[in-house]
Amino acid sequence: MNVLDIIAKKRDGKELNREEIEYFIKEYVNGNITDYQAAALVMAIYINGMSEQETTDLTMSMAYSGDVLDLSSLGEVIDKHSTGGVGDKITLILMPVIASFGIPVAKMSGRGLGFTGGTTDKLESIPGYNTSISVDEFLNNVKNSGISLVGQTMNLAPADKKLYALRDTISCTDSIPLIASSIMSKKIAAGANKIVIDVTCGSGAFMKSREDAEKLSNIMMRIGELANRKTVCIITDMNQPVGYAVGNTLEVIEAINVLKGKLMPNDVKEIIEELGANMLLLANKTNSIEDGRKMISENIKNGKAYQKLIELVHNQGGDVSYIENTDMFEKAKYIIPIKATKNGVIKKLDAYTVGKLSCYLGAGRAKKEDKIDQSVGFVFNKKVGDNVENGEILGYIHANDEQKAKFVLEQEIFVVE
Amino acid sequence: MNVLDIIAKKRDGKELNREEIEYFIKEYVNGNITDYQAAALVMAIYINGMSEQETTDLTMSMAYSGDVLDLSSLGEVIDKHSTGGVGDKITLILMPVIASFGIPVAKMSGRGLGFTGGTTDKLESIPGYNTSISVDEFLNNVKNSGISLVGQTMNLAPADKKLYALRDTISCTDSIPLIASSIMSKKIAAGANKIVIDVTCGSGAFMKSREDAEKLSNIMMRIGELANRKTVCIITDMNQPVGYAVGNTLEVIEAINVLKGKLMPNDVKEIIEELGANMLLLANKTNSIEDGRKMISENIKNGKAYQKLIELVHNQGGDVSYIENTDMFEKAKYIIPIKATKNGVIKKLDAYTVGKLSCYLGAGRAKKEDKIDQSVGFVFNKKVGDNVENGEILGYIHANDEQKAKFVLEQEIFVVE
Repeated sequence: MNVLDIIAKKRDGKELNREEIEYFIKEYVNGNITDYQAAALVMAIYINGMSEQETTDLTMSMAYSGDVLDLSSLGEVIDKHSTGGVGDKITLILMPVIASFGIPVAKMSGRGLGFTGGTTDKLESIPGYNTSISVDEFLNNVKNSGISLVGQTMNLAPADKKLYALRDTISCTDSIPLIASSIMSKKIAAGANKIVIDVTCGSGAFMKSREDAEKLSNIMMRIGELANRKTVCIITDMNQPVGYAVGNTLEVIEAINVLKGKLMPNDVKEIIEELGANMLLLANKTNSIEDGRKMISENIKNGKAYQKLIELVHNQGGDVSYIENTDMFEKAKYIIPIKATKNGVIKKLDAYTVGKLSCYLGAGRAKKEDKIDQSVGFVFNKKVGDNVENGEILGYIHANDEQKAKFVLEQEIFVVE
Repeated sequence: MNVLDIIAKKRDGKELNREEIEYFIKEYVNGNITDYQAAALVMAIYINGMSEQETTDLTMSMAYSGDVLDLSSLGEVIDKHSTGGVGDKITLILMPVIASFGIPVAKMSGRGLGFTGGTTDKLESIPGYNTSISVDEFLNNVKNSGISLVGQTMNLAPADKKLYALRDTISCTDSIPLIASSIMSKKIAAGANKIVIDVTCGSGAFMKSREDAEKLSNIMMRIGELANRKTVCIITDMNQPVGYAVGNTLEVIEAINVLKGKLMPNDVKEIIEELGANMLLLANKTNSIEDGRKMISENIKNGKAYQKLIELVHNQGGDVSYIENTDMFEKAKYIIPIKATKNGVIKKLDAYTVGKLSCYLGAGRAKKEDKIDQSVGFVFNKKVGDNVENGEILGYIHANDEQKAKFVLEQEIFVVE
């Protein structure tokens, strides 16, 4: 086998076989295939595409390029993933709900790049919460309490890490087979047998159009089928942020309040119920989506899901008093109201704009090495479709830098017409 | 300007403008654009192609990426180039002929990779011949004697060198716009205003098909037009080696014998006359190709071209007695006849096979660092179309390693039917 032949084959639009894909991934991780050879192949894949079988072979090769978590001792674990967006605190809410049904939740989450932190970053805004416990502790927590949420402590899918970083530097991020194999390889390496994926779609998401979101969903479900990992994809809107809060601590507070039954934004309710019902269905806890939706709502209302959150935080070394009293969370120095300048209806609260501004305030990383500012971001009072009056407060900017706050205030965050 | 945008544009099949191409070349040579970014762009160019204007812009950017030789003090210099092949000693014969008409010959040639050495390597088989004289000496030789042939002593088109090496490792060598811009950038950096290019076509050449050779010719002529360097391309056959000799010293001896009027293989005569007549036409030394052909033949017959060769070798420090008496050249240790095994007609003497075997004998480099064995190669007695009798000697293998000679003898070099 020879990397030049493999590159030439894909360059000419032919289909690579499993051996060729496995060879490429193995030798790329080993360093025997260079970054420039990988870049040439990735560009050829971007332009000429990949069949479902090729995408599945790439997924499996990347999944098995490093550690593969064995969750078989826990019973049937159902993983959840989101293709990302702005204000996406769904994992923080949904996983305690799922655990409250006795379905084991053993989830490794990533850190964020771009808009705000990832789930791991958000969890770390809870003082004491340890996202990097050992794999044994992780598994023990799941056995004892039914839930553990941690960072990626293992060397999961190193081939994906390497390829992902490369794609970012050669304008090859938005290739559907490459996105699909990247997501699925990490899920498979993380030990999932059944997977529910929230495919976000809109200005704040990877997939800008419904058509692309459907393509990505279909190929991931097909990979799941070929790889014998039952996969369900649900397309959700990411044209405006999810819920009311954007930013690490601010989203954690919102998630706590949802689980406390104090608050339930419509879009969060819809996503939680739809994803949750599909997970219950996969776990054979229900026979219909409709019943599943009701069960999800019920376990939030009756406080069972909140109890699981308390257990989770406690088991990971987090200070539970912050959960019980969210006023204890450190606040940003400047909390500045965004006011309506006329009467009308909110036509737009653009997720991309909000995401970029959050990152500018310090909530996200521009580069891997950057530190995250946990307390900054936005809390909105209003969302698209709401009526507003001139002078009404539409939300608040949370900032630790006055100049940055002023700059953000000057931007058109809400479009009122 | 941003490399990611440039890559994305070509990835999507759009046309790059001059500023984008210049930026890419400049920053790639500077090291600010990485090899993997260049690899991604090159693959996108390979698959999506380049317009004539893009190819010309790439050519000019590469031409001006390093030193550019100023030949204006010499009058109008007409350069000659070959896209390479097996037994290609045309430069060694043609340039003294051209100089014999008072047309200044100031040519920098490359070294070889693959089948045999390049013109520079071949010249170095003449004891004492210095291919790396200073640029001043080079120009002075042309002023005083009308001819100088040297190696690439200057830093000509470093962007091309870097891209060429990269293309080799990512299966992107046989892209017509990339080949065209590579050739033309070197010619333009070498100071030529008018260029005659021998586009070889066949098993021993880069271009395997007539169609591809025509495409390459057309784009190079178009680049010449857009870059204001009048360019003529002539497609010649490279399905069998040119002339009778293949190998460095062996080709030099053949070239000397042609200029002495001792020998004139039909194919060499055709190429010399066709290329030479076009050069005379470009130099306004004749009004028709037909007359030009006769003039070329005449200056070989009357010994004027041979005199120029003697002057050339003398001026570059070479030992002229070797030219006067070619028996002085060092011979290979083993000279082994290739015999016909039946009566018939020679149907095939494959240039690619002969080239590969020459390289195996040591006449060429497999890697850049390899040393060349000057004396090895082949001298044929017969070529395609010749009648042969069983047992007749078809040619000789010249080798310095007995085992290698035996291996070569076992190969089917001639196909007789």
